[in-house]
Amino acid sequence: MSFDLLLLLADRLGVFVFAVSGGIVAVRKNMDLFGAVVLGLVTAVGGGTLRDLVLGEPAFWLTDTLALALAVGGALAAFLMHAHLEGLKPLRWADAVGLAVFAVAGAAKAAGAGHGVAVALIMGVMTAAAGGLLRDVIANQDPLLLQEDVYATAALAGAGAYAALHYTGAPETAAFAVGLAAAFLIRAAAIRFGLHLPRPRR
Amino acid sequence: MSFDLLLLLADRLGVFVFAVSGGIVAVRKNMDLFGAVVLGLVTAVGGGTLRDLVLGEPAFWLTDTLALALAVGGALAAFLMHAHLEGLKPLRWADAVGLAVFAVAGAAKAAGAGHGVAVALIMGVMTAAAGGLLRDVIANQDPLLLQEDVYATAALAGAGAYAALHYTGAPETAAFAVGLAAAFLIRAAAIRFGLHLPRPRR
Amino acid sequence: MSFDLLLLLADRLGVFVFAVSGGIVAVRKNMDLFGAVVLGLVTAVGGGTLRDLVLGEPAFWLTDTLALALAVGGALAAFLMHAHLEGLKPLRWADAVGLAVFAVAGAAKAAGAGHGVAVALIMGVMTAAAGGLLRDVIANQDPLLLQEDVYATAALAGAGAYAALHYTGAPETAAFAVGLAAAFLIRAAAIRFGLHLPRPRR
Repeated sequence: MSFDLLLLLADRLGVFVFAVSGGIVAVRKNMDLFGAVVLGLVTAVGGGTLRDLVLGEPAFWLTDTLALALAVGGALAAFLMHAHLEGLKPLRWADAVGLAVFAVAGAAKAAGAGHGVAVALIMGVMTAAAGGLLRDVIANQDPLLLQEDVYATAALAGAGAYAALHYTGAPETAAFAVGLAAAFLIRAAAIRFGLHLPRPRR
Repeated sequence: MSFDLLLLLADRLGVFVFAVSGGIVAVRKNMDLFGAVVLGLVTAVGGGTLRDLVLGEPAFWLTDTLALALAVGGALAAFLMHAHLEGLKPLRWADAVGLAVFAVAGAAKAAGAGHGVAVALIMGVMTAAAGGLLRDVIANQDPLLLQEDVYATAALAGAGAYAALHYTGAPETAAFAVGLAAAFLIRAAAIRFGLHLPRPRR
Repeated sequence: MSFDLLLLLADRLGVFVFAVSGGIVAVRKNMDLFGAVVLGLVTAVGGGTLRDLVLGEPAFWLTDTLALALAVGGALAAFLMHAHLEGLKPLRWADAVGLAVFAVAGAAKAAGAGHGVAVALIMGVMTAAAGGLLRDVIANQDPLLLQEDVYATAALAGAGAYAALHYTGAPETAAFAVGLAAAFLIRAAAIRFGLHLPRPRR
């Protein structure tokens, strides 16, 4: 029960922080208040929405009004306080928490619907990373996800660790805990040490 | 009955005019005939399609061939007559009619499916504004929606006025009429007086 | 049976080659390994995914792991061997095969679900061309589809030829064969002779 509560809190934190990142991009692109709210919502719930549509289900936020409220709140916070929020170190760590929770929750949703390991991995990455990708596509900027650092890779690692335990019959709580730790630690190492994946030699 | 017919005509006008706006962007970006048709279709039915997918339903136009025909017609008209259409004043007012109808119809569809007021508001804005957003994303230009003026805000006001009446048990015809008037008048004021939302102070 | 097998092989070839084209764009945009895989997947399965969502069904690749594996393989091949692959002539012809199969298969899926000819045409074009469109939108470049040559038009011709035979009661194998030939030959002529559609006079 305590673990479930922690997971829920981490998810709510993730929604809020993802929305802040959307709002900050909106401010940078000189969008108005409404643009900030749209971009915040897209960043915060876009990944989960895409996951649900691909699985053939309605979007999760149709029955999760709190997620919508937190996303709007995060976007408003970014709009009003961007000068203080931009570059704020704790935000990057909160974002890493959101990344980890979204990745494992996405993989778990696919696994729970009876899909195999390949689909679970894709759903984990999609849930964690598609919101940020949509944010950049809508803001008409080169997607950070595909350019910059070990972000989606951390999501893949988290989904993979979860899947390795889930599909071998480990207790669900253990699979969640290991998956979350894997995603968060890899993302943390990437932030701390500036890790990056190989680029093509040209 | 007469009100229903008016609503239907306004919706058909909206589809056509939204497609014209897609076709005009295609011409500006020097796309070929096919690009104009694609962009016209996306602008005209993209918002309603996204609304339906998020609600877990097939796209409305699978059973609405007339909408497809009007969208293709609007795109062709823009391709052939862009020099006459671009900047044409009546087009902006017809677009405002489409905006109002799409916003209220989107909110009504969500409300009719049993969803709460937050979802109804989002669906109203999404139906009215997502087509234009997709048009700009595909045409690789900064989205007008998030930059320029009181457009999505008018959709939000229309969906909000509809929802305020619908969820308090007012007759559906009254909710539609007030919602349409709210969206159209706010958009009309924005066109006429150049209203805009606050931007971030940098 | 032999025809079905041929069709399946052509489809698998199409998935692989579409993923290669996504991987090549990723390399050109200096994305990392993960970006190449994401862009390869999007290009290879994006069109079919959009078709399925619009039809109100889960994405086809939830139960087609081989398609995912081929798409990842194609993206990796592009990432590792882009210098050899870029501009390779046989790739363009393999891409034309994929275009033809995707267009006809998309139209056939819509027809099989009981939809009319307009929907079948759109689904054919969407299945064949939306993956490449999503690739360009995500990579933040002007969409080739809407700019460059007779690509989507070939898909439309293939879907149209299939539909003309299917809806008049011809044997399904004949409808497939004629549809495939129409799409491939028009695309081949466009590659060989540099055909293009009319552009707007400005």
